[in-house]
Amino acid sequence: MGSSSVRRKKKQQEIHVTPPQSLSYDGFSFDITHADPHSRARTGTLKTPHGTIETPNYIFCGTKASIKNLSPHAMRQAQTDIILANTYHVMIQPGADLVEKIGGLHKFMQWDGPMMTDSGGFQIFSMGHGSVADEIKGRNKIDRGKSLLKVTEEGARFKSYWNGTYLNLTPELSIEIQRKLGADLIYQLDECTAYHVDKDYTARSMEMSHRWGDRSLAEFERHHDGSQALYGIVQGGVYEDLRDISCAYVNDRPFFGLAVGGSLGGSEEEMFDVVNMCMQRLREDRPVHLLGIGRIKDVFDFVRLGIDTFDCVSPTRIARHGWALVKGLPGERLNIRNACFRDDPEPLDPRIDIPASRDYSKAYLHHLIKSGEMLGMQLIAQHNVATINMLMREVRAAIKDGTLDQLQKEWLPE
Amino acid sequence: MGSSSVRRKKKQQEIHVTPPQSLSYDGFSFDITHADPHSRARTGTLKTPHGTIETPNYIFCGTKASIKNLSPHAMRQAQTDIILANTYHVMIQPGADLVEKIGGLHKFMQWDGPMMTDSGGFQIFSMGHGSVADEIKGRNKIDRGKSLLKVTEEGARFKSYWNGTYLNLTPELSIEIQRKLGADLIYQLDECTAYHVDKDYTARSMEMSHRWGDRSLAEFERHHDGSQALYGIVQGGVYEDLRDISCAYVNDRPFFGLAVGGSLGGSEEEMFDVVNMCMQRLREDRPVHLLGIGRIKDVFDFVRLGIDTFDCVSPTRIARHGWALVKGLPGERLNIRNACFRDDPEPLDPRIDIPASRDYSKAYLHHLIKSGEMLGMQLIAQHNVATINMLMREVRAAIKDGTLDQLQKEWLPE
Repeated sequence: MGSSSVRRKKKQQEIHVTPPQSLSYDGFSFDITHADPHSRARTGTLKTPHGTIETPNYIFCGTKASIKNLSPHAMRQAQTDIILANTYHVMIQPGADLVEKIGGLHKFMQWDGPMMTDSGGFQIFSMGHGSVADEIKGRNKIDRGKSLLKVTEEGARFKSYWNGTYLNLTPELSIEIQRKLGADLIYQLDECTAYHVDKDYTARSMEMSHRWGDRSLAEFERHHDGSQALYGIVQGGVYEDLRDISCAYVNDRPFFGLAVGGSLGGSEEEMFDVVNMCMQRLREDRPVHLLGIGRIKDVFDFVRLGIDTFDCVSPTRIARHGWALVKGLPGERLNIRNACFRDDPEPLDPRIDIPASRDYSKAYLHHLIKSGEMLGMQLIAQHNVATINMLMREVRAAIKDGTLDQLQKEWLPE
Repeated sequence: MGSSSVRRKKKQQEIHVTPPQSLSYDGFSFDITHADPHSRARTGTLKTPHGTIETPNYIFCGTKASIKNLSPHAMRQAQTDIILANTYHVMIQPGADLVEKIGGLHKFMQWDGPMMTDSGGFQIFSMGHGSVADEIKGRNKIDRGKSLLKVTEEGARFKSYWNGTYLNLTPELSIEIQRKLGADLIYQLDECTAYHVDKDYTARSMEMSHRWGDRSLAEFERHHDGSQALYGIVQGGVYEDLRDISCAYVNDRPFFGLAVGGSLGGSEEEMFDVVNMCMQRLREDRPVHLLGIGRIKDVFDFVRLGIDTFDCVSPTRIARHGWALVKGLPGERLNIRNACFRDDPEPLDPRIDIPASRDYSKAYLHHLIKSGEMLGMQLIAQHNVATINMLMREVRAAIKDGTLDQLQKEWLPE
């Protein structure tokens, strides 16, 4: 069970709260516009108070209330529809009260489109370091017990990497913070279990996450003014019977959207199986988000299972190391630092109508990255975002046309 | 005389070359549009094959063929007219041949406006470190002898910080490299003397720089096709009689433009006096550039002496440390890291019509810089560039209106 410094919750008094039977999400809607007859792939429109997006879509990560290296203008130029910010980072610095005072995350970041925040739990449970790398997902690299101090029925007690103070993230506090941040789509708090926990722990954790879901719903209802919509999270690890229970739980509660969370297993095959288990059980009228997964291959795999939205830091993170995503490359991407690009006059991808993709030579980008020029990271990051947005546009069109297999071969030749 | 590892040139055979009597600069022109009756301040238009700029103007530094953190699009949005690249950095990495192969610096950098390159000499003479800070000017911090190996009549021998190879920058090579880079406005090679050299050294160095000027002119003429225009550089240190000789030299040669170079003294007052000496002697029909000087106060001081163009890395360099230039602040700038900006909802300067200046709160910029987010440096850099461009627009208008004193009080209140 990992680190001994994290005391396991046991024999704790369970906190039961009566959740609302129903919630009105008037400013929001999710409509399925096309369903593929041969898979669970579908297209839809997801309406929020800050605009309507088509699904499947990709949510880009503005971890600390900023997409690394890219302004909202640059994100829009790359045809981005929706972004997210990580509650954990923002609550620690600059803090939710300050963001609320400035007018909420939309105004703070100057992003006027749809926005999501997570609950803040993931980073607490999965990172656990005294200091924090800028962006961390990577579910297998779990090191509990350094910043996470204690998980109780009440919430997760942890130490701020910013100033060393102690904080207790409860379901109620997570919702309160996300209300202050003001994103359109927000999340219940859940416990993110590690891959190697046993079934007994997974089951008890799942039950607690359900109680946390009910507390999140109750807190959400208390101040609900129609400006936000709440997502619930399916738990249950790799165990089908637990996923069954957890899907029934989220299906039954008045969440606007659903997300596949908890451990997705230790391999790509297991991840596919776990998501598949969930998607067979989740009600079909709600948008489903897949947390933190978003390579090009993943998008093709999981839209076929019915996933509507993805998020992943990788498009902007890999750009900082010179990796550019390009349609039609077997490995999805090339490394511009490679010597073969030193004198390559061709652009990254003339099919994409932004200067970063269409106008700059690979030779110039190679030079910028080799020289440590921040402009290089900026241009490749924007190119990667634009590439993913082109991918999602083409995926939506292919679902409607029934040509997803063909499109996958174009993007990922064998 | 500083480091002993740099062997002084002495008893070397002088290399005399017959420079051209005249050169045609058909694609270029410099026209004075207004001359202030009470000072030597003037406005003008400087025409190049890549566009015409109004003067006085400010040339932003793209040291390694990139303005730090800012794309050409962002520079244009900030109303930038002209940029420069440093020949020294570009010749070392990626190299002039590669840039020429890609189509020249304009195409390489995707900047379609007027561009300047320096001779490459300044960095060799003034930096002299085995490794190189990203951008270095700061004329008083001269440490000769680490990368500079030897100055001879032929040229300056030095060691590449990039790969340790030995290079000999001669006047002919500097012109050849700048021809390959293809900027509109280029420079003769000169020896940049340090502040503390004696008059005898300064005089001999000046004479050699004049011979280097003639060799630069001859090499320039050999391949002159009308696409570039050559600037000569006034030497002579702080010595009026030497400045007299050097001004006569550059006035007499067919340079398109002139620049005040060499040691400008050890204090602000001395710098003012040295520039003043030169500006009293330089012919008035050519554009005059002041190398590497460009605080807001400098702009006001030196446009009154007749300077037409400035360059300095500081607007983009200080942005990386959180310093924002703002019109009307006594010290020219504020540091966004200051705790007083933590919850400041106001933008940096609503008078400037770009998001970086007008839309983002200081609180957000404070958060970005405190969190190490590159977007913060990017936004402040663009704001600083836009501020300087607003300064130059207002300076040009004030010269025409005779209101320069009043404008200076608005920008720099006591």
